[in-house]
Amino acid sequence: MDNVGLKPMDAEQLRDYAHQMVDFIADYYNSIESFPVLSQVQPGYLHKLIPDSAPNHPESLQNVLDDVQAKIFPGVTHWQSPNYFAYYPSNSSVAGFLGEMLSAGLNIVGFSWITSPAATELEMIVLDWLGKMLKLPEHFLSTGQGGGVIQGTASEAVLVVLLAARDKALRKVGKNALEKLVVYASDQTHASLQKACQITGIHPENCRILKTDSSTNYSISPHLLTDAISHDLGVGLIPFFLCATVGTTSSTAVDPLLELGKISKSNEMWFHVDAAYAGSACICPEYRQYLNGVEETDSFNMNAHKWFLTNFDCSALWVKDRNALIQSLSTNPEYLKNKASEANMVMDYKDWQIPLGRRFRSLKLWMVLRLYGLENLQCYIRNHIQLAKHFEALVAQDPRFEVVTPRIFSLVCFRLLPHYNNEDDGNKLNHDLLDAVNTTGKIFISHTVLSGKYILRFAVGAPLTEERHVNAAWKVLQHEASTLLSGNPIE
Amino acid sequence: MDNVGLKPMDAEQLRDYAHQMVDFIADYYNSIESFPVLSQVQPGYLHKLIPDSAPNHPESLQNVLDDVQAKIFPGVTHWQSPNYFAYYPSNSSVAGFLGEMLSAGLNIVGFSWITSPAATELEMIVLDWLGKMLKLPEHFLSTGQGGGVIQGTASEAVLVVLLAARDKALRKVGKNALEKLVVYASDQTHASLQKACQITGIHPENCRILKTDSSTNYSISPHLLTDAISHDLGVGLIPFFLCATVGTTSSTAVDPLLELGKISKSNEMWFHVDAAYAGSACICPEYRQYLNGVEETDSFNMNAHKWFLTNFDCSALWVKDRNALIQSLSTNPEYLKNKASEANMVMDYKDWQIPLGRRFRSLKLWMVLRLYGLENLQCYIRNHIQLAKHFEALVAQDPRFEVVTPRIFSLVCFRLLPHYNNEDDGNKLNHDLLDAVNTTGKIFISHTVLSGKYILRFAVGAPLTEERHVNAAWKVLQHEASTLLSGNPIE
Repeated sequence: MDNVGLKPMDAEQLRDYAHQMVDFIADYYNSIESFPVLSQVQPGYLHKLIPDSAPNHPESLQNVLDDVQAKIFPGVTHWQSPNYFAYYPSNSSVAGFLGEMLSAGLNIVGFSWITSPAATELEMIVLDWLGKMLKLPEHFLSTGQGGGVIQGTASEAVLVVLLAARDKALRKVGKNALEKLVVYASDQTHASLQKACQITGIHPENCRILKTDSSTNYSISPHLLTDAISHDLGVGLIPFFLCATVGTTSSTAVDPLLELGKISKSNEMWFHVDAAYAGSACICPEYRQYLNGVEETDSFNMNAHKWFLTNFDCSALWVKDRNALIQSLSTNPEYLKNKASEANMVMDYKDWQIPLGRRFRSLKLWMVLRLYGLENLQCYIRNHIQLAKHFEALVAQDPRFEVVTPRIFSLVCFRLLPHYNNEDDGNKLNHDLLDAVNTTGKIFISHTVLSGKYILRFAVGAPLTEERHVNAAWKVLQHEASTLLSGNPIE
Repeated sequence: MDNVGLKPMDAEQLRDYAHQMVDFIADYYNSIESFPVLSQVQPGYLHKLIPDSAPNHPESLQNVLDDVQAKIFPGVTHWQSPNYFAYYPSNSSVAGFLGEMLSAGLNIVGFSWITSPAATELEMIVLDWLGKMLKLPEHFLSTGQGGGVIQGTASEAVLVVLLAARDKALRKVGKNALEKLVVYASDQTHASLQKACQITGIHPENCRILKTDSSTNYSISPHLLTDAISHDLGVGLIPFFLCATVGTTSSTAVDPLLELGKISKSNEMWFHVDAAYAGSACICPEYRQYLNGVEETDSFNMNAHKWFLTNFDCSALWVKDRNALIQSLSTNPEYLKNKASEANMVMDYKDWQIPLGRRFRSLKLWMVLRLYGLENLQCYIRNHIQLAKHFEALVAQDPRFEVVTPRIFSLVCFRLLPHYNNEDDGNKLNHDLLDAVNTTGKIFISHTVLSGKYILRFAVGAPLTEERHVNAAWKVLQHEASTLLSGNPIE
């Protein structure tokens, strides 16, 4: 037993190497603006740079760091760049990063309370904190029948609540009624709901995708919902789940929670709200109005890893009735039994989620809340919204462009106006503009389609973004637009 | 726009604070043996120590670190302690920790190739590396129709393959046949399969749990499987999925892959292998035999985050036919469309998993493989197996104890012998012994039940464990056994 070559967790080597890694990462942030925001590599680029098999013998840390610099960085799309305006932000922060370090350092697996009581209890406490900051109803807090839990992503959040709702419905109407269950959402609802329906076996023809348009600013019309439910009930189907969104992915549309909640309640449907992006803004009193009606919902989700400075992944889900989740997700194998669980004295989060294992993710959210504090976080959100407002004003001043939907939070939906109102031309034009600006590497923005129109999305929210970056981004857009318009005149 | 109070990603603050955190974590590893391995706090302990709401104003890092020490640590069960022998190990290593740091530092969200080409491509390459180390069949590598992907946990791995198998079967026999689909596994299969069945809507009465016993050392009997399939076919049901295990959770039983594979093939069933724990050992030529027959499987899973020095979470899944996964899990919303994906030139891992977002987890596996190298990793595994063999010998020398199942890898299943062959007494005795040793805080072990007998599990695998820790653990067990036996004599 003397051939113990490897000491994989030597505290002094950890100290030495990890200090080097800290400097490497701090240097990365110092130079982050020097990289193209959107990686410009070609598919398969890395295969040519890396050996076909793992080494037999150890390599030095310096070698690996050199490779990260030379081979990995060119293939990174820099989500933390101040010039990143695509999709929605995915914030890294000093506090969030420290929380990740500590969680990786302890490397506990907190599936049951006993496997690290602090992991379960801190998660309950911190989600209560965040719930109070969002003024969520009492029944979402851990003191009642509900509670909060950290999921990996909003996709997992909607999957577990859909599952809980499915099983609750099937317990009522009989387990062979799966093919009768109907889900309601809008054409603006995130694709994760569709995926959750596929997984849980909801029949595709029973997914009611309510059409939205500019008349409601792409939010769900309660009338359409009522009509759809009536029709489904009329043909013997069973409405059981409604997913509304506060801040849709395409355009930050806000569904009317209060009206939708009443409809859900009178039809005994599970009402879930996806506020993955915009939930963060609702810690500011002036934006809390968008959650009005949340007291009518059964579950509510916001991603602290988007616009809330908590490194990916950290998706906060609150439910009104935790037993509904537990009934669908619990297993109780012998090898996990323990006194505390058997005595029903504790919460075991394994029964609130898909995976068994779970990281100590509450640490990073706790560190964000403590190292920044509520007022700073509100200021952070407001600053981004101000920057988006500023960008919106820049767009509005250029007659070649239009702002397509009213800006609510920190996303601006805009486009180059088509020549002679030719929408096909407009779509190509904006598609080409997107491609042109992203190819410069100077900024990264993304797109959507609303009512058949190709739209550009400018999402402010990276932690390093300042007014100068927004101004520079606008100059890039104007410049590429000019080139495009002069080079491709309509005959 | 001047009220920008918060600079949440200041490179120099990151450098300063993260250096402090490195020292905090290195100091933790230096003092790790001073803590009780299993946390000794009472349910609800943390609630009394932490305020009811988040602070309005920032707190200092030192305050937070002091609280981690004073309030969090007592509630931590120290999975990295050298005296941790419970469940299965969950390794942290310097390399794995550095990979987590780098991943958290870049904080990219690699759902599509375009969102960080390096994240997708490194994952493909590194899983090919690991696949070759395990001598997996060519068709599991990314060069063919299959490929590897990092899932969060083995639970997610079995869920996505069960889903792919379900949909493949339903495409063949018609989508209303869900209630006819039958899953096969054994009473030793991990509970995650049961959970996956619940989620995907497999009817509970169609989950065939094949009984195992000591005659096959708790592995699946191919005859029982054949009989069950014949019976199900006879009554019009549709066998579609078999889950075998290499290294079961209770006792590291190894199912006979080759024979099971032939049965699966002739019945056109999806054959999945869960080698979550024992897969790591199969990088050593002398343990590779336990994977014989893997060439007959459709999917194979091992957790690099268990016994392979890669910090949680990192569960490696290989599939033979990636399109089966993609058909079940892909969504293609407008807002995620991009040139590379539309041109089918790239892999988008979002379509291989439940969540949309994903961390850059291949970095840590890459760093483990490079900073340690194959030979060191083999030596690491062999050393733990040697230590388990040593513990087994200690148990065998004490006539009060018995080794219950033959040790194969690094887990020893053993128990105190009951008085006068009274099994009820034996179960209580071992239950009490488990409780007594874990309450000392000196070691942490867990249990299972095999053929109605309560068994103690001693799993070697924490990175810091040395022979002296195994010897000390055995002394604790002997001492508590003596106390128990002298205090509770059977009349």
